[in-house]
Amino acid sequence: MRITALSGGVGGARLLRGLAAIDDLDVTAVVNVGDDDRIYGLHVSPDLDTVVYTLAGVHSDERGWGRSDESWVVMDELVRFPLDSAFRLGDRDLALNLYRTTRLAENAGLTQVTAEISKAFGIGVTVLPVTDDEVRTRLKVDGIWIDFQDYFVRRRHAVPVEDVRFDGADEARPTPGVLEALERADAIVIGPSNPILSIWPILAVPGVRDAMEDKQVLAVSPLIGGRAVKGPLAELLPAFGYGTDTAGVVATYAGLVTDIVVDRSDDPGPIPDVTVHVADTLITETAAARRLASQIVAWL
Amino acid sequence: MRITALSGGVGGARLLRGLAAIDDLDVTAVVNVGDDDRIYGLHVSPDLDTVVYTLAGVHSDERGWGRSDESWVVMDELVRFPLDSAFRLGDRDLALNLYRTTRLAENAGLTQVTAEISKAFGIGVTVLPVTDDEVRTRLKVDGIWIDFQDYFVRRRHAVPVEDVRFDGADEARPTPGVLEALERADAIVIGPSNPILSIWPILAVPGVRDAMEDKQVLAVSPLIGGRAVKGPLAELLPAFGYGTDTAGVVATYAGLVTDIVVDRSDDPGPIPDVTVHVADTLITETAAARRLASQIVAWL
Repeated sequence: MRITALSGGVGGARLLRGLAAIDDLDVTAVVNVGDDDRIYGLHVSPDLDTVVYTLAGVHSDERGWGRSDESWVVMDELVRFPLDSAFRLGDRDLALNLYRTTRLAENAGLTQVTAEISKAFGIGVTVLPVTDDEVRTRLKVDGIWIDFQDYFVRRRHAVPVEDVRFDGADEARPTPGVLEALERADAIVIGPSNPILSIWPILAVPGVRDAMEDKQVLAVSPLIGGRAVKGPLAELLPAFGYGTDTAGVVATYAGLVTDIVVDRSDDPGPIPDVTVHVADTLITETAAARRLASQIVAWL
Repeated sequence: MRITALSGGVGGARLLRGLAAIDDLDVTAVVNVGDDDRIYGLHVSPDLDTVVYTLAGVHSDERGWGRSDESWVVMDELVRFPLDSAFRLGDRDLALNLYRTTRLAENAGLTQVTAEISKAFGIGVTVLPVTDDEVRTRLKVDGIWIDFQDYFVRRRHAVPVEDVRFDGADEARPTPGVLEALERADAIVIGPSNPILSIWPILAVPGVRDAMEDKQVLAVSPLIGGRAVKGPLAELLPAFGYGTDTAGVVATYAGLVTDIVVDRSDDPGPIPDVTVHVADTLITETAAARRLASQIVAWL
C-alpha cells in the first residue's frame, strides 16, 4: 500500500513515525516549507528538520524542535554580539543547517538536499519538500504583515492573527516527485498539523490540490479536547471564521477530506460527507503513534 | 604617536598585540581580506579574526587560527553529511562567523561589522579590513588557478605555487578609514606576515601604496634563520624570483620600505637604501611581542 502524507512539524512528524513502523507500507511525506527562513545567513527548514529528526529518533520531544542530545555552545557565544538571537539553533542542528545552506549555494535543489540529509540519517520514508521554490508564510498582526518565524519564535505565537498569506506560492511549482507521490498514492493522509499554518501552505502550491481530487484523503484532527497539543490552533480557527471543533477543522480543508480521525475526547458525531473515525490521537509516545497509524491503515 | 600597521594573520597579529600594550600609542591595523571566503554559506575572514582573537587574548597559539578555549560539536556532526569539511570552524568561532554573515546580509559593510566584533571583544586597537569590497587571493598550482583556502587548508600549502593574483583588487576601493589611517600615521609598520600572500593583497588595493609614499615604512621580516615561523614563505620567495633572505623580503616590497627589522639569526649586514634593525623577532610569547614593539617604537 502506498500512502502519501502531508505534514507540518511535530504532529505530522509523529504520525509519520508511526506509519514508518508498519511493514510493507510505502510512505512518502510531502512537507510544508512555508516556515523556511534565512537565519544567521543559513537556510532553515523547521518542518523538514522536525520530520527528519523525528523519523531518525533524534528529535527533542520536550522542546518540540531540534535534536534531543544537543549542546548550545554556538548560541551561548552568539549572545556576545549585538544580534537578535531569539531563534536558537543547537550545535548539532547547526551542522545540518550549514550542510543545507552549502548545498543550496551549490545550486542543489531543496528536494535533492533533503534526500541527502535523509540518507545521512538513514531514514526509510521519502521526505519531500512540497516545492523547491520559495514559499513564505506571512501573518497579519496588528495590521502589519510579519514573517512566520517572527510570529512563531519572537512573539511566541501569542498575538492575534488577522490574516495569512503564502508569498511565492502562486508562482511555485510542486516538484515532479510530489505530484507523482500524490497521484500514485492509494490514499493521502493529512497529519495532525495545524491546517492553517502547516497544511494550507502545502495546498497553496498550484497543482497539489488537483492531484488530490478523487482520492481518499484522511485527515487527523490536531484537536484534543478542543485544544491543540501544541501551538496556536485553538486561537487561529475562530480568527479565520472556523469553529474550534472537528467540524471547524474539516471545514478548513474545504471539501478536500473524505475521512477525519478525531480523538475520543472530541467525538463530534456524524459530519456531512465525511467519515468520522474515533481513536486516541495523542501520539507523543512512539507506541501510540504506531497504534494510530495501524488503525489508519486499516480504515483506508 | 600614531602607528598604522599592515597585517595578515598570526605574525602581524602578534606584533599588534605587542604594540597594543604600549601606553600612549594610537594603533590602527589594516588587515588583509584576500583570504576571505564563503565556507558552509558563511563569510569567513581568517586574518581579521586572527587579529581580533589575538588582541582579545582568546586566540589559539597552538593551532595558529581560531579560539583557544574551543569545542568542535558542530564540525564533529558535520562529517555525517557528504561534504568537504576540511575547513574547520570551532563552535565559538562559528558564532562570530554567523554574526558577520548575518550583518553582511543586512548590508552592513565589513568595516562596520569588524568594528562591532572588535567592540564585542573589548579591543582597543582599531581593526580595519583594507576594503569593504571583495578581494580574493588566487594561486596558480599545476597550471590551474585555485582559491586561497583550497591551497592553504585543503592542500596544506604543500604544493608549488607558480603565480598569484588578487581577484577584484583592481576595482576595490580602500575604505576612507584606511586611507585616513595611512595618511595620518607618524609611521607605518608592516608586520612579520607573508609579504606575497598577506601584504601584497593589501597593497594591491588602488590607493593604499600611494598613501604610504614618503612615509617611514618599517617592515618586520617574517624570516627567522632563513625560514618562516609558520607557513610557506621560504618556498614562495624563490618561486617568485626573490632570495630566501632579508634582501629578498625587502625586494618583495619594491622600494616601499625604509626600515627592516630582522632576527639576530638573519643579520644581513647593510642593505642599500634601507635601515636594518636587528632584534629578537620570535614573538610567540606576549612578553617578546611587547619587547619588540617597544624597540620598534624607539626606532621610529
